[in-house]
Amino acid sequence: MRTSQYILATLKETPSDAEIISHQLMLRAGMIRKLASGLYTWLPSGLKVLRKVEQVVREEMNKAGAIELLMPVIQPADLWEESGRWEQFGPELLRINDRHNRPFALGPTHEEVITDLVRKEINSYKQLPINFYQIQTKVRDEVRPRFGVMRAREFTMKDAYSFHMTEECLDNTYQRMHQAYCNIFERLGLDYRPVIADTGSIGGSVSHEFHVLAESGEDAIAFSDASDYAANIEKAEAVAPSEARPAPSKELNSFDTPEAKTIEELKAKHGVKPHRGVKTLIVYGAPDENEERGLVALIVRGDHELNELKAEKLELVDSPLEMAKEEDIVAAIGARPGSLGPVGLDMPIIVDRSAAVMADFVAGANKDGVHYSGINFDRDVTEYTVEDIRNVIEGDPSPCGKGTLHIKRGIEVGHIFQLGSKYSEAMNAGVLGENGKNQIMTMGCYGIGVSRIVAAAIEQNNDKFGIKWPKTLAPFELAIVPMNMHKSHRIPDIAERLYSEFQAAGVDVLFDDRKERPGVMFNDMELVGIPYTLVIGERNLDENKVELKNRITGEKLMLDIDSAVVEITKAIKA
Amino acid sequence: MRTSQYILATLKETPSDAEIISHQLMLRAGMIRKLASGLYTWLPSGLKVLRKVEQVVREEMNKAGAIELLMPVIQPADLWEESGRWEQFGPELLRINDRHNRPFALGPTHEEVITDLVRKEINSYKQLPINFYQIQTKVRDEVRPRFGVMRAREFTMKDAYSFHMTEECLDNTYQRMHQAYCNIFERLGLDYRPVIADTGSIGGSVSHEFHVLAESGEDAIAFSDASDYAANIEKAEAVAPSEARPAPSKELNSFDTPEAKTIEELKAKHGVKPHRGVKTLIVYGAPDENEERGLVALIVRGDHELNELKAEKLELVDSPLEMAKEEDIVAAIGARPGSLGPVGLDMPIIVDRSAAVMADFVAGANKDGVHYSGINFDRDVTEYTVEDIRNVIEGDPSPCGKGTLHIKRGIEVGHIFQLGSKYSEAMNAGVLGENGKNQIMTMGCYGIGVSRIVAAAIEQNNDKFGIKWPKTLAPFELAIVPMNMHKSHRIPDIAERLYSEFQAAGVDVLFDDRKERPGVMFNDMELVGIPYTLVIGERNLDENKVELKNRITGEKLMLDIDSAVVEITKAIKA
Repeated sequence: MRTSQYILATLKETPSDAEIISHQLMLRAGMIRKLASGLYTWLPSGLKVLRKVEQVVREEMNKAGAIELLMPVIQPADLWEESGRWEQFGPELLRINDRHNRPFALGPTHEEVITDLVRKEINSYKQLPINFYQIQTKVRDEVRPRFGVMRAREFTMKDAYSFHMTEECLDNTYQRMHQAYCNIFERLGLDYRPVIADTGSIGGSVSHEFHVLAESGEDAIAFSDASDYAANIEKAEAVAPSEARPAPSKELNSFDTPEAKTIEELKAKHGVKPHRGVKTLIVYGAPDENEERGLVALIVRGDHELNELKAEKLELVDSPLEMAKEEDIVAAIGARPGSLGPVGLDMPIIVDRSAAVMADFVAGANKDGVHYSGINFDRDVTEYTVEDIRNVIEGDPSPCGKGTLHIKRGIEVGHIFQLGSKYSEAMNAGVLGENGKNQIMTMGCYGIGVSRIVAAAIEQNNDKFGIKWPKTLAPFELAIVPMNMHKSHRIPDIAERLYSEFQAAGVDVLFDDRKERPGVMFNDMELVGIPYTLVIGERNLDENKVELKNRITGEKLMLDIDSAVVEITKAIKA
Repeated sequence: MRTSQYILATLKETPSDAEIISHQLMLRAGMIRKLASGLYTWLPSGLKVLRKVEQVVREEMNKAGAIELLMPVIQPADLWEESGRWEQFGPELLRINDRHNRPFALGPTHEEVITDLVRKEINSYKQLPINFYQIQTKVRDEVRPRFGVMRAREFTMKDAYSFHMTEECLDNTYQRMHQAYCNIFERLGLDYRPVIADTGSIGGSVSHEFHVLAESGEDAIAFSDASDYAANIEKAEAVAPSEARPAPSKELNSFDTPEAKTIEELKAKHGVKPHRGVKTLIVYGAPDENEERGLVALIVRGDHELNELKAEKLELVDSPLEMAKEEDIVAAIGARPGSLGPVGLDMPIIVDRSAAVMADFVAGANKDGVHYSGINFDRDVTEYTVEDIRNVIEGDPSPCGKGTLHIKRGIEVGHIFQLGSKYSEAMNAGVLGENGKNQIMTMGCYGIGVSRIVAAAIEQNNDKFGIKWPKTLAPFELAIVPMNMHKSHRIPDIAERLYSEFQAAGVDVLFDDRKERPGVMFNDMELVGIPYTLVIGERNLDENKVELKNRITGEKLMLDIDSAVVEITKAIKA
């Protein structure tokens, strides 16, 4: 491809609304342009990268025995009503009416459509297991689209759905998909981790996310430093402290704290170390005998954070978790948030495992502007239950039993689920079993954020000059940059010759024939992130040489013109 | 691929709601399934064919210098308001509101989005011409989706848009696209014709459609039998008859026709030959001095049909053309349709060229139940204009001057337009010209119905057993059908060996390992339309032979097992 007949669309300035590096670089390198909030056009070089990701995903899915098909983006509402998600799904589900006023949705996911297809097309256990996938445009009306294609409203996803007679068979396919995902991210050259995950609104039991590690990641991942254990912090277990609770050594004492409503203020104004106090969080739950909604107190150590997902899974706590309104707290307790604590609290109290081993600690006295010190469980607080309700932190022991946890940020690029029979049961998707009876199928589902991977790869592969594409993803394999083309015949002649020789050798080469200043061309090639740049200049030509620059290593190499095509092609195809 | 691990989804019965052969066969061969009206899932073998069409289109577009990008399906309304099409486009444009109640459309076409992109990204004449294309899911909320993927609501289209400084440059790219389209349909093995076309709602001046010839086609195409001339019947000129109008030889005479309101009834009841009478059609148009809507009479020979598109382009006729309501006709003329004619008619009269050379003809007398015979222009009808307002018919002289016209049915699979500045002007898309001044660009646009091509190809390639895929489009290159696999070890052993050898040779082979009866397997392979089937049977194995069946020619060939893979691979890759 000649630059003069292409559109590089590189930008010198960093667009002000792009917060993270991949979004900035995708705009600057001319990969994408915003059409509207969360809607992006993939410019030619961006689309080439996207297609390369698609192709790796496709190849590995095929290798793992999955079969590609393509379902419509537009889905009839009645299927979503059958599964119950027409009601459950929030405004992320973009709903439309057609010209006859019939309701449809633009698919964010296709569990309903595939289950409908399979219940009609698959009749016998002999046809199972089967695993269908598609690579398709998906729609999710995000409340706050951001970070470019990282969280867009229209995006490309690979979604797969498997159907089985037994849990064992599902687990087999699940493991195969787990391995296929590892192969995909490996081939894409990404630093990634499979992590134990929550199943969220999709449902099911076992689930793993695949995260590309990057500081801009929206998720926190906990890793053991001594094993393979990794989990989304949402899901990582905070194990019970091994030490026993010390015996009480202090009396319960109240003290005035008119200007200390937070852990930080208690520390600043009263010298209370955060890990010596507790936070008392009041949420809705605990229905009484009349099934009226009540309040529940959640207690975590002052330096710990509540894990909402863990809390809302408890029977006493409403799901989704909702913090109690101040008026409800005042009505029940007589004090406002900032002065709350477990002593004398008349509602179910759930204490985090780490808080439960504290002695002589500080908490609010349930009286505005007053705290207690010297609180002790069992002596001052007698009715409570102990649960794991906090986020793990750096240095916690790993729940696998080996090593301690470290926390990193991750970008979720894949998610696999053992769905079980959630959809197949709701939609009555059964087949004839070996025993001649109808049996509901068991399902797995497996997603990859194809367009998000492009952004995630850039988060991991960039420097101050631009993108440093791994070979598998680069939009071009090689750039030819002739210096000062207009000044002599020799430069363009040799550039043209090498260009056609590389094309003949099957190299995807970008020939920068723009007659721009060399600096402009070099900057563009570095920004776009082409792995190799071949520089053709007068001085080197005098010695029958051309210069090859490696974008990743920065290396420069002088090559004989006559052997350059063969050598470079070999390096590229290696 | 093994059939046992695939989904063929073939059907024995022809689904009752499928009217045309391609729709029937796509369902029966397991290529598609209906999700809702006009919405289809592409099953695995169907998707493979669709992707092959895509790939041919992509390769030829690239070869012709077009650059691939990808725009969103969801488009903001404001761009459509800028072009004026938010109002103009009917309910085919599926409109949606997002969660913030902002209006969007699901793109049936992308003139607005690409023009917006180009006006932002292209600044100078030096960057022109440029031609962008995408292969994408499109949405059109058809009032009556039908014929399967032929007229679906969600479909795959290749759309391209070119930008230029001059008409000459546009014409160059237009010719290049014309050639690329010929290459595409040639490579796909289709019997097709480029035909002169109307520009319709897209706008512009020059336009060609590409039609695949098939009896189920919704369009009629007129061809010269002595030249390359071909036009959509909408657009084909009916040339003025070369003979002069004969002199009047009869008197004007009225006769009673109480039960003859149509040309057919006049013939049956009164012996009037259709080509000796005329039809008088009353439409709206002809605004008077107060710009009030009036009526206009259109006269065509009794055996001819009005061409609405030609008529509505006349200044006196409203566009879109609308037949006058009976009450308006009665109020203006005093007679009802069925007894109308040009004699004494007080409104503008437009006479078709072929009707204008008639003498002594028959028409209604503008009195219910009465007709005139012996009508003559200039003597009995003095004020009228002559225009081309009819459809051409078989046997008409070709407007190119050579040969006569024949009419065939066609399926529109491509359409190219010289748009001119319709969109670029409305959206102020200009670049810096060579003279340093801003200049509005000139545009072309070029569409191919990718998913429709799959159906059109089947219309041309089928027999009573199923689809007869041309090599370029077949979902598999070869089927291996072992007969009675369970009866011996020899059959499965050899089948397995050949299967892996073909895979190693790069042949896309379907191994039918279902252990079904041979007849069932043969029928499926013929229905699906796999070009070659290799049959492995006991009797032939005794002689070290296997049998190769050719789906297109029906030929059967005995091959030595040892050379079968090499020979067949050669035939397939030829």
